[in-house]
Amino acid sequence: MSTVRREGRQSVVFEDPPVILGSAAIGGPFEGQGPLADSFDQVAEDELLGASSFERAECLFLERAVELALKKAHLTAQQIQHFLAGDLLDQMVTSNFAARRLGIPYWGIYGACSTSALGLQLGAMLVAGELAEYVVSATASHHLAAERQYRFPVELGVQRNPTAQWTATGGSAFVLGRGKNGVRLTAATVGVVQDLGLKDPNNMGAAMAPAAADTLSHHFEDLGTKPADYDLILTGDLGRVGHPLAREILKEHHLDLGEHFDDCGIMLYRPQQDVHAGGSGTACSGMVAASWLQHRLQSGELRRVLFVATGALHSPTTYQQGESIPCVAQAIVLEAAQEAKR
Amino acid sequence: MSTVRREGRQSVVFEDPPVILGSAAIGGPFEGQGPLADSFDQVAEDELLGASSFERAECLFLERAVELALKKAHLTAQQIQHFLAGDLLDQMVTSNFAARRLGIPYWGIYGACSTSALGLQLGAMLVAGELAEYVVSATASHHLAAERQYRFPVELGVQRNPTAQWTATGGSAFVLGRGKNGVRLTAATVGVVQDLGLKDPNNMGAAMAPAAADTLSHHFEDLGTKPADYDLILTGDLGRVGHPLAREILKEHHLDLGEHFDDCGIMLYRPQQDVHAGGSGTACSGMVAASWLQHRLQSGELRRVLFVATGALHSPTTYQQGESIPCVAQAIVLEAAQEAKR
Repeated sequence: MSTVRREGRQSVVFEDPPVILGSAAIGGPFEGQGPLADSFDQVAEDELLGASSFERAECLFLERAVELALKKAHLTAQQIQHFLAGDLLDQMVTSNFAARRLGIPYWGIYGACSTSALGLQLGAMLVAGELAEYVVSATASHHLAAERQYRFPVELGVQRNPTAQWTATGGSAFVLGRGKNGVRLTAATVGVVQDLGLKDPNNMGAAMAPAAADTLSHHFEDLGTKPADYDLILTGDLGRVGHPLAREILKEHHLDLGEHFDDCGIMLYRPQQDVHAGGSGTACSGMVAASWLQHRLQSGELRRVLFVATGALHSPTTYQQGESIPCVAQAIVLEAAQEAKR
Repeated sequence: MSTVRREGRQSVVFEDPPVILGSAAIGGPFEGQGPLADSFDQVAEDELLGASSFERAECLFLERAVELALKKAHLTAQQIQHFLAGDLLDQMVTSNFAARRLGIPYWGIYGACSTSALGLQLGAMLVAGELAEYVVSATASHHLAAERQYRFPVELGVQRNPTAQWTATGGSAFVLGRGKNGVRLTAATVGVVQDLGLKDPNNMGAAMAPAAADTLSHHFEDLGTKPADYDLILTGDLGRVGHPLAREILKEHHLDLGEHFDDCGIMLYRPQQDVHAGGSGTACSGMVAASWLQHRLQSGELRRVLFVATGALHSPTTYQQGESIPCVAQAIVLEAAQEAKR
């Protein structure tokens, strides 16, 4: 008998929940000046980590996060059956090159900035379905690699739009498996792509807000829960523009997200860090979930969190061709470790 | 009790196998001049399908393949729980935009030209693990979109290298689920990335051959099978350079692949079509598997096939930065429908 219960079309409930055996987050130097720096496992001293390019450095952030998470889980790469990873670079080379180094059977996954939650969903399903004993899921992004790929090399000094978000530099990784200890993955809601016709890549928060709202409302409907059933609903990364918009959209659906509604893109940087609308990038929600959030779930300070990572699924090519920006949001419920103190 | 048996680190056996409820392949006009054209569901009359760009056309190939496969499976998009899709364009926009149109809960998957088998592996696991009732897995590629992204716009008329492969134009889709009829997915072997240091993107067959050999040898070891246990071992897409190399590498491991060893990249075009080393692209192996191979498994002409799609996981950026080409191969065993005549 399966220990997985399907609810509605988009959701599954894990009745014998997989757990997070280890997680790690490594921030870039600028992220190390942010309010969550103390919860990171490491903060890089420079943007390059000794590599010859920003793209190679992004790969190092990913590899190091995986190695740290494995160490915390007391496992080696050889014991892992699936490496699930994704990033923002063309053809996902960060993940591909990390997979080459790690030597773990590999599937690339793509959901732009929603990839962190996608990896947790898929990893939890593989463990719950007894398809794997141990899975590693990881993401990374690099501000300087993303800027020159998506927009302009930062050396040009092009002025940023006030609604623009700041691609985070860093890496995050989770090791999933079975165990009595560890934060539990108890349910997942897979997102349907939403597109309300917004075309401005300098305002991705507004483009992504409807996707977050859609996945959230389906999650509550499928599971028969309401916002108050969660200690925290954490989107990532809608930023300062998209986050209030998601709240507004859900209000129209008679869902009040209340006080315990936050966003990884808002949390990652201090207001005076001048990132405009907040953080973004595959690493942004991954880093917050793998560090700050893990600590609070491990301690029992938070008991039940709905983590909803959002992604803008466009490319520079589709933007230049005049297309709008399809977006998706992937949700996963994280519950405090059983041994956690109340 | 799970109906999935893990074998070794890389393989799973589906003891109650998911089946292919419907599949479809749509070829471009050039692919329609190839030897497999009769087995395609549709051949496009032109490269654009009425779209304003090659990139938009690629998306139409994907959407139409999915719609046809759903029709054959007597299912609607609304009945599907997971849409798994991948392609070669930056940020996987073909798949993302198709997901927007189809409205099925979506995960992007990336394995370059191995994506077709990755989708079958993951889809089979989701069905076998009771995580989904119905899954659609799909891929597409477009010669004219890929050339201008990876190499040069074809309008430039740059001469192609004799070892270069030809990115196929087309789309392919599979609908997976439970059923007594239909080709069965009985085992999967997930690939580990291999990289022997080759750096020439105009000779990807040679770069991918070691990955194919590695996944094949692990498959035989994990399952305790030998090449002669399969009516056909079908790689995709090593082409005329990579395919004999994979045979050579396996010979060194005392594995003789015998006569029943073929390659989607070699099969897709006629020698006089001047594609040099053969076909490639996410659609290449997908189209062959969704049409020619399906027909032979449905009729019982082939009983048990090991399908091993190969992917080169580089990008134009990594090539320009002097990196070598990491490659992966994903394997899945397809067995004749139970009702198939011998």
